[in-house]
Amino acid sequence: MIKQVLIGVLCGAAVLTAGILIGHFGITMSSAPSWVKDVAKDVDESLIEKFLSEVDNIQIQENLRSLTKVPHMATTAGDEQTVQLMLKRWQDPETGLDQAWREEFMVYLSFPDPKKPNKVTVVSPSDEVLYTAREKEKTYTSDQDDPEVVQPYAAYSPAGHPKGKLVYANQGKPSDYQLLNNTVDLRGTIAITRYGGAGRGAKAINAAPYGVIGVLVYTDPLDINDGLMSDINETYPHSWYMPPSGVERGSFNGQFGDMLTPYLAAKEETYRIPAENITGIPPIPIQPIGFEDAYRLICPKWLDKNSSNVMGVIKGSVEPDRYVIYGNHRDSWVHGAIDPSSGTSVMLELTRVLGKMVKQGKWRPRRSIIFGSWGAEEFGLIGSAEYTEQYFTKLSERTVAYINVDIAVFANATLRASGMPSLQKIIFKAAKQVDAPGLDSTSVYDNWIQYSNRTSQANGLIPNVGYLSGAGSDYAAFVHYLGITSMDISYTYDRSKTNARIYPAYHTAYDTFDYASKFIDPGFVSHQAIARTAGNVLIRLADSLLVPLNCSDYAETLEDYLNTAVTLYQHQLQERNISMEPLKRAVASFRSAATHLDQVIRSSDLANETPLTVRRINDQLMLLDRAFLDPLAFPDKYAYRHVIWASSSAGKPTFPGLADAFANAESQSSAWDKVHYHLSVLSQAIEGAAHTLADEH
Amino acid sequence: MIKQVLIGVLCGAAVLTAGILIGHFGITMSSAPSWVKDVAKDVDESLIEKFLSEVDNIQIQENLRSLTKVPHMATTAGDEQTVQLMLKRWQDPETGLDQAWREEFMVYLSFPDPKKPNKVTVVSPSDEVLYTAREKEKTYTSDQDDPEVVQPYAAYSPAGHPKGKLVYANQGKPSDYQLLNNTVDLRGTIAITRYGGAGRGAKAINAAPYGVIGVLVYTDPLDINDGLMSDINETYPHSWYMPPSGVERGSFNGQFGDMLTPYLAAKEETYRIPAENITGIPPIPIQPIGFEDAYRLICPKWLDKNSSNVMGVIKGSVEPDRYVIYGNHRDSWVHGAIDPSSGTSVMLELTRVLGKMVKQGKWRPRRSIIFGSWGAEEFGLIGSAEYTEQYFTKLSERTVAYINVDIAVFANATLRASGMPSLQKIIFKAAKQVDAPGLDSTSVYDNWIQYSNRTSQANGLIPNVGYLSGAGSDYAAFVHYLGITSMDISYTYDRSKTNARIYPAYHTAYDTFDYASKFIDPGFVSHQAIARTAGNVLIRLADSLLVPLNCSDYAETLEDYLNTAVTLYQHQLQERNISMEPLKRAVASFRSAATHLDQVIRSSDLANETPLTVRRINDQLMLLDRAFLDPLAFPDKYAYRHVIWASSSAGKPTFPGLADAFANAESQSSAWDKVHYHLSVLSQAIEGAAHTLADEH
Repeated sequence: MIKQVLIGVLCGAAVLTAGILIGHFGITMSSAPSWVKDVAKDVDESLIEKFLSEVDNIQIQENLRSLTKVPHMATTAGDEQTVQLMLKRWQDPETGLDQAWREEFMVYLSFPDPKKPNKVTVVSPSDEVLYTAREKEKTYTSDQDDPEVVQPYAAYSPAGHPKGKLVYANQGKPSDYQLLNNTVDLRGTIAITRYGGAGRGAKAINAAPYGVIGVLVYTDPLDINDGLMSDINETYPHSWYMPPSGVERGSFNGQFGDMLTPYLAAKEETYRIPAENITGIPPIPIQPIGFEDAYRLICPKWLDKNSSNVMGVIKGSVEPDRYVIYGNHRDSWVHGAIDPSSGTSVMLELTRVLGKMVKQGKWRPRRSIIFGSWGAEEFGLIGSAEYTEQYFTKLSERTVAYINVDIAVFANATLRASGMPSLQKIIFKAAKQVDAPGLDSTSVYDNWIQYSNRTSQANGLIPNVGYLSGAGSDYAAFVHYLGITSMDISYTYDRSKTNARIYPAYHTAYDTFDYASKFIDPGFVSHQAIARTAGNVLIRLADSLLVPLNCSDYAETLEDYLNTAVTLYQHQLQERNISMEPLKRAVASFRSAATHLDQVIRSSDLANETPLTVRRINDQLMLLDRAFLDPLAFPDKYAYRHVIWASSSAGKPTFPGLADAFANAESQSSAWDKVHYHLSVLSQAIEGAAHTLADEH
Repeated sequence: MIKQVLIGVLCGAAVLTAGILIGHFGITMSSAPSWVKDVAKDVDESLIEKFLSEVDNIQIQENLRSLTKVPHMATTAGDEQTVQLMLKRWQDPETGLDQAWREEFMVYLSFPDPKKPNKVTVVSPSDEVLYTAREKEKTYTSDQDDPEVVQPYAAYSPAGHPKGKLVYANQGKPSDYQLLNNTVDLRGTIAITRYGGAGRGAKAINAAPYGVIGVLVYTDPLDINDGLMSDINETYPHSWYMPPSGVERGSFNGQFGDMLTPYLAAKEETYRIPAENITGIPPIPIQPIGFEDAYRLICPKWLDKNSSNVMGVIKGSVEPDRYVIYGNHRDSWVHGAIDPSSGTSVMLELTRVLGKMVKQGKWRPRRSIIFGSWGAEEFGLIGSAEYTEQYFTKLSERTVAYINVDIAVFANATLRASGMPSLQKIIFKAAKQVDAPGLDSTSVYDNWIQYSNRTSQANGLIPNVGYLSGAGSDYAAFVHYLGITSMDISYTYDRSKTNARIYPAYHTAYDTFDYASKFIDPGFVSHQAIARTAGNVLIRLADSLLVPLNCSDYAETLEDYLNTAVTLYQHQLQERNISMEPLKRAVASFRSAATHLDQVIRSSDLANETPLTVRRINDQLMLLDRAFLDPLAFPDKYAYRHVIWASSSAGKPTFPGLADAFANAESQSSAWDKVHYHLSVLSQAIEGAAHTLADEH
């Protein structure tokens, strides 16, 4: 009986134990809140593979064909057609985004008056017309015949009918006019200049003090066509080279965003400065012409017009209040097949593939993805700038990174990338996973490193990633005004094969689908490679548990900048008792904080950490670039606040404010104070950035 | 047998079930990651009770005694003694903080030259001395005899020996000089003015254009002493009133922070502007005097001195990267028993009680708490301003709120609080839990509402919370430069019993421990009430799962401001075709976003939400004030960036930039553009704030 009881008790105990074990291990997963798994989820590599395989070159080609049917200059009927196209795609129930909408700004633009077309005429001293330049480019395909092709003109040039002796002023740089003025009285003359060397508007701004009354600007065949000039067999439609009548249009203003509403979103009732207070635009008339032509001008009109951004969103699942933004402008000067529709075609393909996965319930990113199709970029990055003005606070607080793909394919030789150093590694990772177009078993990365490389102390031989120190595309407001970590990528030239300053049909009526598909990227495989690379980066930024930004790579750039500054400036600064030690200490602090944070990241098991710990590190990485902003550091440079990447005229690979102040001080000894000031601004900003990386209080 | 088997099976099943249940419910808590409970933890009410009971009035009294042993003007030996005292307390192994340290800045201060004391003499036309004003205040306790008592002077007054006819210029307001100038030729005169009506330095700045060559400023017995003047039986040491020889010292500069390093932390090698470029200081000599005296002057010296902040930290357990900052300045003009040591004594008692709980392992706040003992406030809020300049980015990104307790007790009648409207409810909550000093069963809140109240549409009858629109204490840089939600509290007067502009010993050699303990707060029970109230708010800000900031209360203030603006300005603006509709829409957007966010909060079970969801809402609340910053809106007002709370000279309870622009435009019709500009700035900032509260993209 006792034995039976014992057996019973033992059995009971065994059964109880089994029950406890089953209860504990078999059911416990449900006892943790369901979100515990979600918040710890990292990027899914199989999803990346699926994305890469779905990106389709033919889709991109057909996107480009649709986008370039008609000219779509900002605010024209053609522009509205592209708005509708974007909205239709992004609102598609099967491949669209969560939401898409239009945002309208009322902006101040400058157009030629179709009733009074600009004229450039060569006359004899007795006013006899010797020669009249053509008012439009020669027709090779029906594209150039479209009545909506805008006459070549300089947006934001003042109106006028200057008449005077022509003088050749090279690139219109200050030094060009200075040299010329030694031998020629420039008063009352018309300067003829070639593109390059100085910004578009600067050619007129530099000329005015010498009494020049008008400026012509043409594209030099040596700069753009490798010297080729004949449309009988050399230039488009026989090749990618610009025909003799091709004229590069462009915006001739010097700042970005709507010029009547600086720092304010250009809504209908927003305060507008008087038009006569606009600065940075040509003070004298200026007109672009083709290289076959010579010369007289101009009467543009200025208008307030509604310009649209088209916005689309895929809402994040775990961190919807963190944004990865991907954008490109939509407006072109004429048909804009390369600039910007190559980028828009790529963006539409990305959104199709990602939108489909979302609509099918197969994927939703951890963070929100915002797509922006910007308006009126060609007139001065207006759509993107107004967007950042309107949503300044929210974007500053929540944006992890901005990816810009404007001209996606300049040429089909190699990848080109620019951006903050912290993005370098994730661009490399993505480029390694994409096949180089037209090459067997070579990655985009392996191809790239052959064309452009450098040796990094920490990373060895790596492709060279450029910096975003100018305002060449819509990243400008994100980088300089908001301090958001940004990048810009494209496929580009084999520089051993051409010296073209840019692809020759740039901003002309020859930048068409025909041109793109015949001479830039037949088969659209380079477009596909860009879509895959940029999309890969995008998914990783949106999905990675740890934001994939590397602060040690940023430290390396700061050290490079510091070394250059010490080499160039320290000796002269010491003579004036201005110490570079605070800057050296700041860079050292940054390096040490970056090293420490990287160690914390490496030694952490982030998937099992509290989500607030991961979030803390992610915020440190996200906000790193914000620490470099100083809204007062560059009072003369509109919207430039980023003390590492601001534009500079000194042309030195170092801190821009310091370099410019030093260059000024060399010619004007009262300006050494400004050098010291910029050293302090820089030191404080870099120390501030180090503080945000460090965990101390 | 079957029956036995059945029973056995049933028993076995029952035991197994029991086991499963035990296994599941008995052990499962351990299966969820351990941090799940921590991240959901809310404020512990029993801890608040414990805190309230531990705050000790006698401890505060002894703090004050130690702090006021010697004069401790910024950067003097007495100041260093208080630095050491703060460090000793905050590093105490039993009641100290996690960490405490000193931060030093090299700042530009102005002192009287002890070898050439300032003299004010009345002379006859033949230079015969008729009367010489006293150089120091009369001695009643040994405190006034301390050799370290600084001679009464005007910090930042220029040196000089002006000699001229005396004219009485009331309060030295622009209107005072204008009126006087109608009947008196002010050129070459010395103006004698009384404190009040205009800022200290403004009395001289306003005078200079009329040719006035020197200014005297005295404290009017009617303003400070309810008219009492005799030290035989009326003034201190017989009462709290200022003796006839008492002189209010003060800083006579108009901006805050070190004046040689605007927007830069004043470190040793930081760039300094030339001293002659300092703006906002008196252009002519100025000297404060007692009301028994009359007049001649002055030779201060200006020095670069090291000033220290003492910092202490209790590190947060769950969100160490979120800060609640509590601060007060440490420096005084003389012994500074009320200003600022009443606040410092309270802070030391808070840190003792909280530090002990931390050291004993009984408590650690959810968020980090930073304590700041600021240096050189009396010279222009220098320590706190330099701190915010040095750590700008980190503080902007991470600070939930700033609590300032400078003069903790002006008088012992009632609470007085100022701050952002979003803090109102948490101040009320804390004040309801503290007994009013000297009253039975009445809370600080119930007592307060009897002295100062208003009717709120949403909240009914509530105590009146003021705004922080000036730069009266160290909250200035936090509010105006950083846009951090801030508050300032104290115990203060029964206005039915005195008309004193401020407590009469303010900035004189009579502001001593003796004075404080006899006439301001015998028994230190009002100090205790402030410690309890401020500490209660502090703990709730640091510990609450949901950051206790209320955005709907902010909306109510914006609506009040809007209504005032519409009443005052709309008619005239309509006549000039300037629309107020964008501002109305912005305020409506803000209200709607606030209502929505409050609904989300109310309908959420935050303790069971993912911590990232709670964090998202907390970030929206924390960053709300940041959205109101515009670094370009007030180019003439140093460091003022908050478009709702910036200082204003228009004296209207509405948006400051709009009010000032409107006042200017009324007298100068070319200035209407500026009104429109400020409407756009405001609309954009308020819309931006609404965006940060809303969840859309």
